[in-house]
Amino acid sequence: MNKPKIGIINTTGYTGVELARLLSRHPGVTLTSVTGRSSAGKSLGEVFPHLADLKLTIEPCLSEVDLVFSAMPHQESAREVIPLVDRGIKVVDISADFRLRDADDYPTWYGFCHPAPQLLKQAVYGLPELYHHQIATAPLVANPGCYPTGAILALAPAVKAGIIEPEIVIDSKSGLSGAGRSLSLHTHYAEANEDTSAYALGGHRHLAEIIQELGQLCPDKPPKITFVPHLVPMTRGILTTGYAPLAEGGLPANQKGIKELCQLYQDFYRDAPFVRVVETPPHTKHTWGANTCFIHPTIDPRTRRLVVVSAIDNLVKGAAGQAIQNMNLMLGLAEKTGLEVAAVYP
Amino acid sequence: MNKPKIGIINTTGYTGVELARLLSRHPGVTLTSVTGRSSAGKSLGEVFPHLADLKLTIEPCLSEVDLVFSAMPHQESAREVIPLVDRGIKVVDISADFRLRDADDYPTWYGFCHPAPQLLKQAVYGLPELYHHQIATAPLVANPGCYPTGAILALAPAVKAGIIEPEIVIDSKSGLSGAGRSLSLHTHYAEANEDTSAYALGGHRHLAEIIQELGQLCPDKPPKITFVPHLVPMTRGILTTGYAPLAEGGLPANQKGIKELCQLYQDFYRDAPFVRVVETPPHTKHTWGANTCFIHPTIDPRTRRLVVVSAIDNLVKGAAGQAIQNMNLMLGLAEKTGLEVAAVYP
Amino acid sequence: MNKPKIGIINTTGYTGVELARLLSRHPGVTLTSVTGRSSAGKSLGEVFPHLADLKLTIEPCLSEVDLVFSAMPHQESAREVIPLVDRGIKVVDISADFRLRDADDYPTWYGFCHPAPQLLKQAVYGLPELYHHQIATAPLVANPGCYPTGAILALAPAVKAGIIEPEIVIDSKSGLSGAGRSLSLHTHYAEANEDTSAYALGGHRHLAEIIQELGQLCPDKPPKITFVPHLVPMTRGILTTGYAPLAEGGLPANQKGIKELCQLYQDFYRDAPFVRVVETPPHTKHTWGANTCFIHPTIDPRTRRLVVVSAIDNLVKGAAGQAIQNMNLMLGLAEKTGLEVAAVYP
Amino acid sequence: MNKPKIGIINTTGYTGVELARLLSRHPGVTLTSVTGRSSAGKSLGEVFPHLADLKLTIEPCLSEVDLVFSAMPHQESAREVIPLVDRGIKVVDISADFRLRDADDYPTWYGFCHPAPQLLKQAVYGLPELYHHQIATAPLVANPGCYPTGAILALAPAVKAGIIEPEIVIDSKSGLSGAGRSLSLHTHYAEANEDTSAYALGGHRHLAEIIQELGQLCPDKPPKITFVPHLVPMTRGILTTGYAPLAEGGLPANQKGIKELCQLYQDFYRDAPFVRVVETPPHTKHTWGANTCFIHPTIDPRTRRLVVVSAIDNLVKGAAGQAIQNMNLMLGLAEKTGLEVAAVYP
Repeated sequence: MNKPKIGIINTTGYTGVELARLLSRHPGVTLTSVTGRSSAGKSLGEVFPHLADLKLTIEPCLSEVDLVFSAMPHQESAREVIPLVDRGIKVVDISADFRLRDADDYPTWYGFCHPAPQLLKQAVYGLPELYHHQIATAPLVANPGCYPTGAILALAPAVKAGIIEPEIVIDSKSGLSGAGRSLSLHTHYAEANEDTSAYALGGHRHLAEIIQELGQLCPDKPPKITFVPHLVPMTRGILTTGYAPLAEGGLPANQKGIKELCQLYQDFYRDAPFVRVVETPPHTKHTWGANTCFIHPTIDPRTRRLVVVSAIDNLVKGAAGQAIQNMNLMLGLAEKTGLEVAAVYP
Repeated sequence: MNKPKIGIINTTGYTGVELARLLSRHPGVTLTSVTGRSSAGKSLGEVFPHLADLKLTIEPCLSEVDLVFSAMPHQESAREVIPLVDRGIKVVDISADFRLRDADDYPTWYGFCHPAPQLLKQAVYGLPELYHHQIATAPLVANPGCYPTGAILALAPAVKAGIIEPEIVIDSKSGLSGAGRSLSLHTHYAEANEDTSAYALGGHRHLAEIIQELGQLCPDKPPKITFVPHLVPMTRGILTTGYAPLAEGGLPANQKGIKELCQLYQDFYRDAPFVRVVETPPHTKHTWGANTCFIHPTIDPRTRRLVVVSAIDNLVKGAAGQAIQNMNLMLGLAEKTGLEVAAVYP
Repeated sequence: MNKPKIGIINTTGYTGVELARLLSRHPGVTLTSVTGRSSAGKSLGEVFPHLADLKLTIEPCLSEVDLVFSAMPHQESAREVIPLVDRGIKVVDISADFRLRDADDYPTWYGFCHPAPQLLKQAVYGLPELYHHQIATAPLVANPGCYPTGAILALAPAVKAGIIEPEIVIDSKSGLSGAGRSLSLHTHYAEANEDTSAYALGGHRHLAEIIQELGQLCPDKPPKITFVPHLVPMTRGILTTGYAPLAEGGLPANQKGIKELCQLYQDFYRDAPFVRVVETPPHTKHTWGANTCFIHPTIDPRTRRLVVVSAIDNLVKGAAGQAIQNMNLMLGLAEKTGLEVAAVYP
Repeated sequence: MNKPKIGIINTTGYTGVELARLLSRHPGVTLTSVTGRSSAGKSLGEVFPHLADLKLTIEPCLSEVDLVFSAMPHQESAREVIPLVDRGIKVVDISADFRLRDADDYPTWYGFCHPAPQLLKQAVYGLPELYHHQIATAPLVANPGCYPTGAILALAPAVKAGIIEPEIVIDSKSGLSGAGRSLSLHTHYAEANEDTSAYALGGHRHLAEIIQELGQLCPDKPPKITFVPHLVPMTRGILTTGYAPLAEGGLPANQKGIKELCQLYQDFYRDAPFVRVVETPPHTKHTWGANTCFIHPTIDPRTRRLVVVSAIDNLVKGAAGQAIQNMNLMLGLAEKTGLEVAAVYP
């Protein structure tokens, strides 16, 4: 029996190498081709000793495969992906190049004109908890950003149910691997260690996705979202804290309301195998290396506000793990295949 | 000429030992007596090798001094402080025991009945940027909590000026030393390292101070404040991000408004030697070991919200440094005496 | 077909919980019973959210199982293990209670008289790279300490081949999880973070095993070993650097000698599926969560000394992973079963 | 009265910025000129917010000063320093360009021909604990490397006293700031965090200094030194562990010998204000930001070996602090001036 062959474009970034790790143990597919510009010609194990068992060579160009993950930077990724989709090869694009539905948003948020606006219609936003069925038949899936994954999962049930005013503040704290493997002063160890800071106060690019997706869930009342990302000194993990006023006449701001809120979240994620609604504030540590998203919704009774906290591993549920979850759906495999690993704790 | 003699009750916690470090180089006073229960009888240098030069012995009880810092836990501190104040000895109390003006708040927030409600009237809340003059003549100064210091300094100018609706969200990220030197599983290295989490979602005790002090600044409209503290894996530092809607008819939500906002903050802190209003988001790293508070106020033009970020070292401006700043004022010394050290970076 | 049932005594320490993680995905056995004193009655997922999927309850006493891992502290472990062995239940003991062959060593190194000296003869030292066959038929396997695993694997080939004078210095650097989940000041986050220190200069208990095992390999010339462990601020990982003079008339102290040395190590570990002899100095990071041991042997030509560096994850190859490797051999399963996970990097 | 004017060449690296921090509070000199290539024209506070109070502008070229610190990389530093020395300006060179006495060592260890061999005779190796008097009158002081400072101070008393065979193993563990502010993959946060590794096993450049200086102390018997540096995940600090066999007929390998050993170290450092000989293994944490060097010498009685551990802050005693200590001696100031700061702990 032939398993589908899988390829990774640009395996040498952190998402690419995490894809290789997770695919290496995936029982339903075979990773057969990985590319990487600067390291082409080297064995994967030379660049990443923990993957030496895979016995793959980093190639300059992809070999023939059935499904491709593109882990290229935005704008470059579209260039790689468009011809593949045209040839009928299924693609999970991990860049932002097919996440926004409106081509006009690309100049605004990413500073370039989209090269294939028609493909934006075919692309499905790859958050399986919202688009499970569409992903299954999509030729091209746009894997969500790491911050949007944590933020949308945290707020979607409340927004959809209309229990909050869509006056939303999202405060996210991310580990450094989210900034990628490219060198920069702010990811230099001695600068980043023992430091916490906010950035992109003028509007992080991931905000576009968050607005788009939460907006879909409350079309009558476009949400007003302030999103501030922060860097905290750890390698992996995003903790997102969301705040919004309870809608008038909705949930009561007391223990009874908190119970109803939890039930609402439980119901929303009933069929989502990787989301765990929990009764105590989650820790990013409990997601290290795993595809889990923990969500803790509660109410501040003094101020009648929803407070909701989510925790993910930015490289797994926030990138490579979610991409494989999408692949599973696209290939008709069980959603959890290859992703049933527990977090590495402590 | 005799310098005032200073004592520290409970020098063996992190605030106590940080007081000893800073006082050891203070040119205007002499640290003459330090106490500590479990370590009484040992030399200070035996417990804290970096302070061996001080040649002090940890005593079971305080010797005769002119001013005392109490670094005892709350409820215990009041017991130590009350007789000292009665004897006319100046006290800076670092616990929460004299921070709240209304004795009724103690059962609510701290779970005990206040033993000396009359002293709450004499005590001054020791945030020199707000109470400079009152501190100078106070017999008893209640040193603010670490979170309140970062939060109040971040929001006071905006609240006082009435440029925001007092619908405030405060999201703070603290290093682990804020949790003290007592052992607990959540400060165990392997648990806390590589982890970020939210806690006290039901209402952290420091919220009482924040409500009290920001409320004083807008007596007509009691602020509705949600405060969520987070632990991030670093030893020192608190980064606080505050959010609030701009008041109608106030600042415009554009570059011009941001300029006016910065000017307003600059003016508010014109005479505050330790507050630096800055044009880029601050890093906790730039406060390591120093009494500085960096504040970056800005506006999210999409949502017309104030976003303000402050950074402090929780053990210096958030505890021991601020206590010495208070002491300087109480003793008639220049406010910056002994605190002119630059942060240790990187 | 019934898979063997497995139990863990004391699952609430770091080795116990790591055993549960690795066994949860093991295809050849079923984890059916876990115990823990303070947490008895709770679900495993309540104490360790990342293991909620396991749906196990922490029990006060073990249920009937086919093989038991004891993760109790030394001296207490023997008490649990002796009756199990007597009843014919296979045991992997992770404590030190059956590692030393000579009962007289227990008072010296561990301060207690061994309660079952006769069992020391039946127990096999569970380092599969040295005792593969003995382990397969052993009723009781004594899982090595974390430091000894890294140290013995690094030096065994050289000692056995007689290419060094057994004047050995072993300098190890360990992450904090090696110190366990019990609270102590030296594992308190604010103390351990940003700190490196040496400890146990008077002789760490693990030295007894190292002397015993390396001594077995050169019975004519008892090795003189100095072993100094260090704590470095990370959660997982041990890096061990070993030093010894080359024997006269052995390998030449040049590139040719280094080649021969590598070949000798390659040959020694030809059948060891988890040991990787590598040509560049290894990083503990490449072992995070995996059962791999990287070893880099080389020669300092200036001084004619062997220098060898090994890297392991102290909780996997240094504890739980190695224990499962032993279990696989004891149950007649393939040595790598359930341990083929790649490290989580970065 | 005019204080001497001080300049820093290349203030934008970690040693340069640490010099600026320490000089900013130095009562005996005035920092008047700082240079930096890429940042010339900016204010110092723009690049380093913690030094905004200094109100200095980074210049392209040095102004007229009385003493210069050069914090340039090796080979480039000599080019800057030679003309200054020719003009009679005192220089503390923090690069390696004047540390080695024999010009022939430069091609071997640093890969370039020394441009001013005659200056190597005038230059003094700037370890005040060994060359106090020579430094006082030197026109040019070569500030030691960070590793050599920790290693030489740890071993000098034993080597000089002839109590060990000079068969020395030095195993050092350094924080990441030692690798400087230039970007590289191995100092990228996500790579360096949670990782320990050895490097430069073929011979680190600092070994040349260590051989030279320890060799001076036992001219009859050139020491055979293996030196292996390691990177550990912290920002500051070097812990060095040294090992050597006790000389026959010297100290007894027992408690009495350990006492004599400590006394010998105490005596050696009687007049060294920054060296502290201590009875328990030191922690790098107790040196954070301070010029202290802690040394703990002991004996392994089983193997009759000296084991000695030293701890320094690599940027202070290992670089900028020691440079200022040298400056104090060169300018006739008290050795401790401006360096009496306690470490920032925790």
